[in-house]
Amino acid sequence: MLSTMQDVPLLISRILAHGSSIHGTSLVTTWTGEGEPARRSYAEIGARSAQLAHALREDLGVEGDDRVATLMWNNAEHVEAYFAIPSMGAVLHTLNLRLPAEQLIWIANHAADRVVIVNGSLLPLLAPLLPHLTSVEHVVVSGPGDRSLLGGASARVHEYEELLAGKPTAYEWPELDERSAAAMCYTSGTTGDPKGVVYSHRSIYLHSMQVNLTQSMGLTDQDTSLVVVPQFHVNAWGLPHATFMTGVSMLMPDRFLQPVPLAQMIEQERPTHAAAVPTIWQGLLAELGAHSRDVSSLGQVTIGGAACPPSLMEAFDKLGMRVCHAWGMTETSPLGTVARPPAHAVGTEEEFTYRTTQGRFPAGVEARLTGPGGERLPWDGESAGELEVRGPWIAGAYYGGEGAEVLRPADKFSEDGWLKTGDVGTISADGYLTLTDRAKDVIKSGGEWISSVELENALMAHPDVSEAAVVAVPDDRWGERPLATVVLKEGSTADFTALRSFLAEEGGIAKWQLPERWTVIESVPKTSVGKFDKKVLRRQYAEGELDITRL
Amino acid sequence: MLSTMQDVPLLISRILAHGSSIHGTSLVTTWTGEGEPARRSYAEIGARSAQLAHALREDLGVEGDDRVATLMWNNAEHVEAYFAIPSMGAVLHTLNLRLPAEQLIWIANHAADRVVIVNGSLLPLLAPLLPHLTSVEHVVVSGPGDRSLLGGASARVHEYEELLAGKPTAYEWPELDERSAAAMCYTSGTTGDPKGVVYSHRSIYLHSMQVNLTQSMGLTDQDTSLVVVPQFHVNAWGLPHATFMTGVSMLMPDRFLQPVPLAQMIEQERPTHAAAVPTIWQGLLAELGAHSRDVSSLGQVTIGGAACPPSLMEAFDKLGMRVCHAWGMTETSPLGTVARPPAHAVGTEEEFTYRTTQGRFPAGVEARLTGPGGERLPWDGESAGELEVRGPWIAGAYYGGEGAEVLRPADKFSEDGWLKTGDVGTISADGYLTLTDRAKDVIKSGGEWISSVELENALMAHPDVSEAAVVAVPDDRWGERPLATVVLKEGSTADFTALRSFLAEEGGIAKWQLPERWTVIESVPKTSVGKFDKKVLRRQYAEGELDITRL
Repeated sequence: MLSTMQDVPLLISRILAHGSSIHGTSLVTTWTGEGEPARRSYAEIGARSAQLAHALREDLGVEGDDRVATLMWNNAEHVEAYFAIPSMGAVLHTLNLRLPAEQLIWIANHAADRVVIVNGSLLPLLAPLLPHLTSVEHVVVSGPGDRSLLGGASARVHEYEELLAGKPTAYEWPELDERSAAAMCYTSGTTGDPKGVVYSHRSIYLHSMQVNLTQSMGLTDQDTSLVVVPQFHVNAWGLPHATFMTGVSMLMPDRFLQPVPLAQMIEQERPTHAAAVPTIWQGLLAELGAHSRDVSSLGQVTIGGAACPPSLMEAFDKLGMRVCHAWGMTETSPLGTVARPPAHAVGTEEEFTYRTTQGRFPAGVEARLTGPGGERLPWDGESAGELEVRGPWIAGAYYGGEGAEVLRPADKFSEDGWLKTGDVGTISADGYLTLTDRAKDVIKSGGEWISSVELENALMAHPDVSEAAVVAVPDDRWGERPLATVVLKEGSTADFTALRSFLAEEGGIAKWQLPERWTVIESVPKTSVGKFDKKVLRRQYAEGELDITRL
Repeated sequence: MLSTMQDVPLLISRILAHGSSIHGTSLVTTWTGEGEPARRSYAEIGARSAQLAHALREDLGVEGDDRVATLMWNNAEHVEAYFAIPSMGAVLHTLNLRLPAEQLIWIANHAADRVVIVNGSLLPLLAPLLPHLTSVEHVVVSGPGDRSLLGGASARVHEYEELLAGKPTAYEWPELDERSAAAMCYTSGTTGDPKGVVYSHRSIYLHSMQVNLTQSMGLTDQDTSLVVVPQFHVNAWGLPHATFMTGVSMLMPDRFLQPVPLAQMIEQERPTHAAAVPTIWQGLLAELGAHSRDVSSLGQVTIGGAACPPSLMEAFDKLGMRVCHAWGMTETSPLGTVARPPAHAVGTEEEFTYRTTQGRFPAGVEARLTGPGGERLPWDGESAGELEVRGPWIAGAYYGGEGAEVLRPADKFSEDGWLKTGDVGTISADGYLTLTDRAKDVIKSGGEWISSVELENALMAHPDVSEAAVVAVPDDRWGERPLATVVLKEGSTADFTALRSFLAEEGGIAKWQLPERWTVIESVPKTSVGKFDKKVLRRQYAEGELDITRL
């Protein structure tokens, strides 16, 4: 029996139409570094998105599911690209400007980008890549920057504003299949080639509704959100779409992501909400300590991308900013959990504990934990396993490339289609996730798991240790055992026996989890985004490059 | 280009699974009239829904898309039926216990209900209908009531609790097509046969997300909602589904809908939210005036089904209850608008004005106004037209009956598939709807529309008039003209010329809109739900039964 409901697809063009009419007076404010910020209403964004779509179709020949890339900061033009490209049926491909050049080239070629829209300020980054971008026919430049850098380019170069000028301010957005591709984003995995996640109109629409639930970010048209999380990073956590659904105004920092301009824009523009990774907030907090600023407008701060240290959370609480943890990844659109405390904990000591977890799964995200032997683990807050998730805004595969099948690597997707997140943790009976480690870093010892992060945190609490990384190394008897690599503070000497005792006595580490293998290193190898690069340490161990002491 | 996202259908079983795990400790509390209310956790509701599904399948042979009807008050068992029946793939059919017997019989036979779950207290209503329900094979009785009333029934009679006892508390809910039928509800139209709207899993899921947006009801697990709006009326505005998504607890009044028990349950159970039609609140307000009650918990009251008189809204404001208007109908699931004021009006005098509109369209509901000649009208707050809406939770047809095509009457659905709401009003530039009339009651005079409601309100402000109804009557020159029918207060005499002047001078009615035809009637005919039954007056006029004075 079929329902009698209308069959209206969930399309990004509908989010745009809603935001630019019902919430036509809401604003995208872009910081310009000096003078007045640039302000554009949602109604203007709607009109200019239509103009951009006309330009892409009529002047640049974009058609079908052509990929149109952006190499842009967070700003109003990037929001226009967010809406125009998917709404016309093409695919928005946000290029991560923090990636190494060779990865950017690989990614743009793999996606077969036909057009790149670039901020003028990023031309120094794009220009040297451009000769290697085999599919790019058009470059569209927006905002100030030295155009002469593109002098020798074979791609045609256009001015963003010139393209838009005079184009009709309405567009007959096509009635697409809601499951068709809307946007793509590549993960910068530390192993193998980058992997492309292709979001659908449906997944973005549903994710945006989720962002707007009171138990998620819960913003309304009375809010202004400072969107620090980059638009090139998992759709800026869905904020540009979510805000157009509800009329939340957006404050966009463009390239001014340093503590001083961030503090200035908060004081001047008075956002009520902000979203960013913890490292950005560390710097802002230092700036606020050094110079008194009125940041009282900022009541709610969503932090994701990495866990917020409890000390940082407390520092923000003191400033009247309420930090809310969220967990997710490129493959989860990204909202996977939000750390709103449950009703019974509000106002109690438990509340802070709940806030330091990764949070609770919203309706639409199903979760399960898989143990070392592939078994399902209970939600008891104790059993640690790899987190697997399912839902309409969770990836089930990676883009395989033009004409190729999608990729479903067995280490990323279960046989029944769930995403293996690669994160290890526990889930409480009431659905709160606490992550303890990455699955690839966890030590599988005799059918049990040892958390490398727990050992590292315990080691780094020792006064002689400045940094510590623990990695799994092969062991004949136990399968794997932990290798402790420590960076000593200046003037300290290595006493592994003492460190081992410290772990047991002060760190509360169980005896069977204590490392037998120890070494001192100069510094912990890091990835381009500053995370511990443990595969380097594992390789160095395998190739006998480390001087191991066995206790 | 297809996306790489998981293809997870939006199913009611997923809402149930989420609510009964993540929000397992949230409660459905059912008022029992005396003693402690019955409390059941969402985890228990989940287990019992599985048991109910097993019973329906294994004991009663429910399969495929069989219709299972409920004739029930708002209570925990009705919530179980809400989840069990659609989740197993069958179709929940909520029977409106306020309908006349012959309509109930017609509806149950048209839907081909195989099972009826009935509250014991409603057996006096069901028993005389049962011999006429041609497709009903099983009656399941829940709660206290005189079973002997079903003595002569040919359908098999079961006890709800006996059916559930010992059944497994888990069920392998099937992976259904999200567009398949989940629930149905018939409209009690004043003309023609009742029309069945068939909701899909998809439409209910999306509607539930919408209910939970901060700009809609925006409830969280810190809330308890007093669900006065009946579960047999458009899925209780989606509350049972929405609450399971977010862990909002529900307070269910069962059959205790009178002002005194409502006031008692608010004082004792301290709900933070309530949803009901205005008439219920009129009575409650009178009770609160007569007896002092602590109703301070109730911060938010959603009112729909009819406009809330401003005086009632102000009375609630004084009690600290914030009334929020919502507009919708059976065909719109029902949430079509919510009257949250826009950011710029908050705290100003305009705020109250915005709150008295029907509200703003949420993302997911598209709206347009159609004028008397079929033309599209602007959103200028002035141009009045018939409201047409489109969206994934809006009906595009009516159920045609077993094996029959769906019905798409031209007066209810536009050629391009939009729902013609039959409501006439204006939309402001920022998307706020103000309804002025029903399309069938509006007077189409010389290519312009005259609002019958506006004339009635102006007439009823006259000290001699107790009630007034204005209907369209045929007119050779203008097409239609208004006929004013007035009920005089005791001791008053009819002076139509004076009334006409009053309309022009005090009522602000334009000269061309003033009625020429007048009559005095004893009382205004009403429908079963208490609305003016204008078709009776039109018929009486057509048949010359009214004594008309022409000015």
